[in-house]
Amino acid sequence: MKTVVVVSGGMDSVTLLHEAKKRSEETQALSFDYGQRHRKELEYAESNCTKLSVPWRLVDMRSLTTLLSDSALTFGKDVPDGKYNEAVQKQTVVPNRNMIMASIAIGVAVNDKFDTVALGVHAGDHAIYPDCRPEFIAALGKIAYVANYQPIRIWTPYLRVGKGYIVRRGTELGVDFSLSWTCYKGESVPCGVCGSCTERAEAFESNGLKDPLYG
Amino acid sequence: MKTVVVVSGGMDSVTLLHEAKKRSEETQALSFDYGQRHRKELEYAESNCTKLSVPWRLVDMRSLTTLLSDSALTFGKDVPDGKYNEAVQKQTVVPNRNMIMASIAIGVAVNDKFDTVALGVHAGDHAIYPDCRPEFIAALGKIAYVANYQPIRIWTPYLRVGKGYIVRRGTELGVDFSLSWTCYKGESVPCGVCGSCTERAEAFESNGLKDPLYG
Repeated sequence: MKTVVVVSGGMDSVTLLHEAKKRSEETQALSFDYGQRHRKELEYAESNCTKLSVPWRLVDMRSLTTLLSDSALTFGKDVPDGKYNEAVQKQTVVPNRNMIMASIAIGVAVNDKFDTVALGVHAGDHAIYPDCRPEFIAALGKIAYVANYQPIRIWTPYLRVGKGYIVRRGTELGVDFSLSWTCYKGESVPCGVCGSCTERAEAFESNGLKDPLYG
Repeated sequence: MKTVVVVSGGMDSVTLLHEAKKRSEETQALSFDYGQRHRKELEYAESNCTKLSVPWRLVDMRSLTTLLSDSALTFGKDVPDGKYNEAVQKQTVVPNRNMIMASIAIGVAVNDKFDTVALGVHAGDHAIYPDCRPEFIAALGKIAYVANYQPIRIWTPYLRVGKGYIVRRGTELGVDFSLSWTCYKGESVPCGVCGSCTERAEAFESNGLKDPLYG
């Protein structure tokens, strides 16, 4: 397969990038700049691609931030602390983000004669993000098949597994998790207390591993 | 209903804008700048919105033009002349364009607590543009229902009718077709020979009407 990987620079998509590189004849990566508070994720996305010799492009979506501004991940709200749970994390949803990114990645796949778009959604996200649920991925698979002359396959190998599996699989694939960023805040070190940091810590703990991001 | 209308400034979407304004409690319009050769369509989109007192926003998608460059409507190819037929018009397909625009419009609807996204696709486009076919619109309706906490309805009142109907319906709705642009080329007057001009002329002729764009 020839795979366009959507890479945020978080541990899920960085592991997926390694997975795609291992399994594809050809791999390219897209990251999306939609006015995130911090640039670290995007820098890590790029450095992983450089390491794996995967062509990387950054799609400038900043013109959407004023349109889709009702999210703590862009601006206008404080990032919530505490456990990664529905009430807290709902505040971090960027409206229709995954559909927007997937639709652009599908366009790139068609344009470049690739056949697959890979997304790093996983089971831990289901309760919180509607566009990470299996219903959404099934609908995306269908529309990707009919939207263009050339059908595009949506590949989500982690859809039914949690972040603990991703740490284990990433370790097998040789992922350097110190080059992945999870914290929602834009500080120089992870805050350790936001929902996303908490979930990452649990994923490493469940494998009896130490998170290299903490040195 | 509260409707986000995707308006290119062509006669189909301008008629749809009038239809939405008539039938909705609240209407807003989005146009997309994806590096079209000409600005006339976008100017007409805006002037129709001004006339109808519908808020209009232009989404800057020019960063996508280098990613999705394999289309005569952006750059890199000459616009084909001649009848609006599959072989000729395939050259004008922007990969996955309608899915990209729809996904952003859905995001805006969710963000602004609107419930409907309206698209001006019609039966004349089916053979040519995969993302104007009923299969695509059905798949879009499904994904729009599950991609966010709030289900969004996809409204395509012209899906099963041709451009002749649109001229008739637009006339009923008081559309000023001199404020709609159809020609693929960027000249000050329509070329009259590209596929799109030919199709527009046939739509007016079938209603025994004169196209006001020709003065």
